[in-house]
Amino acid sequence: MSNGHNAVIAQSGGPTAVINQSLVGCIEALRNSGRIGAIYGARHGVRGMTTDEFIDLTEVPQARLERIARTPSAALGSTRDKPDAEYCGRIFEALIRKDIRYFFYIGGNDSADTSRIINETAQRGGYDLRCYHLPKTIDNDLEENDHTPGYGSAARWVAMAFMSDNLDNRALPGVKIDVVMGRNAGFLTAASALGRRHDDDGPHLIYLPERVFDPEDFVDEVDEVNRRLGRCLIAVSEGIKDRAGNAVTAMMADRRERDAHGNIALSGTGALGDFLAERLRQDLGKNGKKLRVRADTFGYIQRSSYEVSPVDVEEARAVGHFGAMQALAGAPSGSIVIRRQSTDPYRVSYDLVPLERVAAKTRTMSAEFMEPDRPGVTEAFIRYATPLVGELPKSERL
Amino acid sequence: MSNGHNAVIAQSGGPTAVINQSLVGCIEALRNSGRIGAIYGARHGVRGMTTDEFIDLTEVPQARLERIARTPSAALGSTRDKPDAEYCGRIFEALIRKDIRYFFYIGGNDSADTSRIINETAQRGGYDLRCYHLPKTIDNDLEENDHTPGYGSAARWVAMAFMSDNLDNRALPGVKIDVVMGRNAGFLTAASALGRRHDDDGPHLIYLPERVFDPEDFVDEVDEVNRRLGRCLIAVSEGIKDRAGNAVTAMMADRRERDAHGNIALSGTGALGDFLAERLRQDLGKNGKKLRVRADTFGYIQRSSYEVSPVDVEEARAVGHFGAMQALAGAPSGSIVIRRQSTDPYRVSYDLVPLERVAAKTRTMSAEFMEPDRPGVTEAFIRYATPLVGELPKSERL
Repeated sequence: MSNGHNAVIAQSGGPTAVINQSLVGCIEALRNSGRIGAIYGARHGVRGMTTDEFIDLTEVPQARLERIARTPSAALGSTRDKPDAEYCGRIFEALIRKDIRYFFYIGGNDSADTSRIINETAQRGGYDLRCYHLPKTIDNDLEENDHTPGYGSAARWVAMAFMSDNLDNRALPGVKIDVVMGRNAGFLTAASALGRRHDDDGPHLIYLPERVFDPEDFVDEVDEVNRRLGRCLIAVSEGIKDRAGNAVTAMMADRRERDAHGNIALSGTGALGDFLAERLRQDLGKNGKKLRVRADTFGYIQRSSYEVSPVDVEEARAVGHFGAMQALAGAPSGSIVIRRQSTDPYRVSYDLVPLERVAAKTRTMSAEFMEPDRPGVTEAFIRYATPLVGELPKSERL
Repeated sequence: MSNGHNAVIAQSGGPTAVINQSLVGCIEALRNSGRIGAIYGARHGVRGMTTDEFIDLTEVPQARLERIARTPSAALGSTRDKPDAEYCGRIFEALIRKDIRYFFYIGGNDSADTSRIINETAQRGGYDLRCYHLPKTIDNDLEENDHTPGYGSAARWVAMAFMSDNLDNRALPGVKIDVVMGRNAGFLTAASALGRRHDDDGPHLIYLPERVFDPEDFVDEVDEVNRRLGRCLIAVSEGIKDRAGNAVTAMMADRRERDAHGNIALSGTGALGDFLAERLRQDLGKNGKKLRVRADTFGYIQRSSYEVSPVDVEEARAVGHFGAMQALAGAPSGSIVIRRQSTDPYRVSYDLVPLERVAAKTRTMSAEFMEPDRPGVTEAFIRYATPLVGELPKSERL
């Protein structure tokens, strides 16, 4: 592949707090090389490539790039579009017109799949294009990765939210449910445990999508904690599923929206939390004593907060940089992955794997991270996740 | 009143991020004076005084106090109990038994009312007791105060959450509703506007409890913004009311809980956001094009976050200190209030007013803070609130 060709970068899927770090890391490394022509950004992911919405990033001043890097949510805009043949046709019209030979796509497993589709279309058409998928997802559910950029900051937000809510629940005791994002993987919900310091700190129960959710067991487990401690703080993944594998949220709603990748919308509603709270009120409030039950659904703020993990910031930047270096080194198309070299001291390395190893696949919590007998996470999970979220604030009790 | 008597401090109502600053400010000033005997903390507000749950705060080391001050949510625990005659009787048994002559109660307008009741009971019974109410509420709804400790930090959280969600909504456009705490006063919901920097930044519509909420107007207003910008970010107070003055949330729920002060529980449910989102889907989705509508309810994290405003931290501490100094100076029972001396440069002073001027009264947003013709806030509100939240993070656009 000759040098001096042009590159395009785009962002896709749910935004994260550090997705612009990867964008900026990629831009920096490409232009510092002096071997790339123009660097374009496509607006709203691949969609902007079909509507000719590009912005030229080649000359954006470094100070402005630094401010972009520190701004949460996708600065180029995002999309959940999945290209079909006609859509791909329009993408290639733009690529050819702009002489683009490098495509960087920052996103999750659906975005890796889009990268794979575009890569295969280019190969079939004999168009010399290298596609690099840069990982990003608060769900932490990409195969081949120890963890993904975006997870550490979202996990930090969730851990701190539970630290706060545990203190709130201690001050005004009752039963409190907090619903956390995560369709199939429980990593973000599990992060609710990272701020626990005392034996009686919440969350006291953690319901993950990897385990069957049984409403009867749920009521019994909450009852047991509430009798023992006089309060109960509960972390629930929005993706919890019944014995048949159906999402509890999806069952409740008459008509849930699906995106182009076939995913049912779970976020942006308080229905699951309200449903579970009402169930507890009915089943536990029977014995005369009124039970104070509240439910909060953390919602989109989890993924685009200004509260970031320093490790996550650094790795998101490094992923963008590493992706650019792969292109400059003439590596084949692929997905950048993060591998952990050691936990103590914490150290990672970066690698490139074929797109199909990540595309449209979902990694979930391994058995060693989940308590076998009750809804909770293990010490192994705490050891795994602690370095990812950075130092948490310290509290004091009276 | 002779010196060397004992004091009790308690915390009440919804916790805040800085309520322990007031606790620590009060303890410090009392013990530094050398003129107070024991300093007790009552667990869970006045309730701990009826159940003999006190802890001795007299000798808590300063370093530990500093850690307590920086910990969100009421370190002594809280309550929503309202004392009746029998309850008051038990409180006075404890006060007499422990020779307590100073009572400091950190809370909102209900707590000021409890302070008033206890003060009047003491006067009737000829028991020499001074009662000082120290203001605290994220709602910012206390009479006589320019603003209240706890508001600045909660407002900062809300402003930053809307900055984040505005960026998220730009990246993946649609209609997004965020429900903010606040029963009768819209100050916290209004804080959603404090992070806006560009003309098209959200929130684009702000619905306050001081104004009648008309669902038809709501649909029209969202439609207008969505057509103009291709997206719409909306701030809604949980306390919005219909033409008859009924809370929209309360109407929807079959049976809402009431606390001892007669307040209906509005928080801890996503029902209002979901109701409004469904209404928009139905009324705006009719013309064929599917409308992406999401609703989040910020919930309890607003009030107990680790994200604090430096000004709020300082003033919450000062309020505790000022309350203690009033007691030491032999001032009559009363409520500490914050008065603004100037906005530029920002400067406040503290004062003591009779309890009945604050007790069980609610201050709401003045007309000058609300746009007359549309759901929004004025520049006067922005000028008022900006110094209270501290410096907000900066963002950059591409």
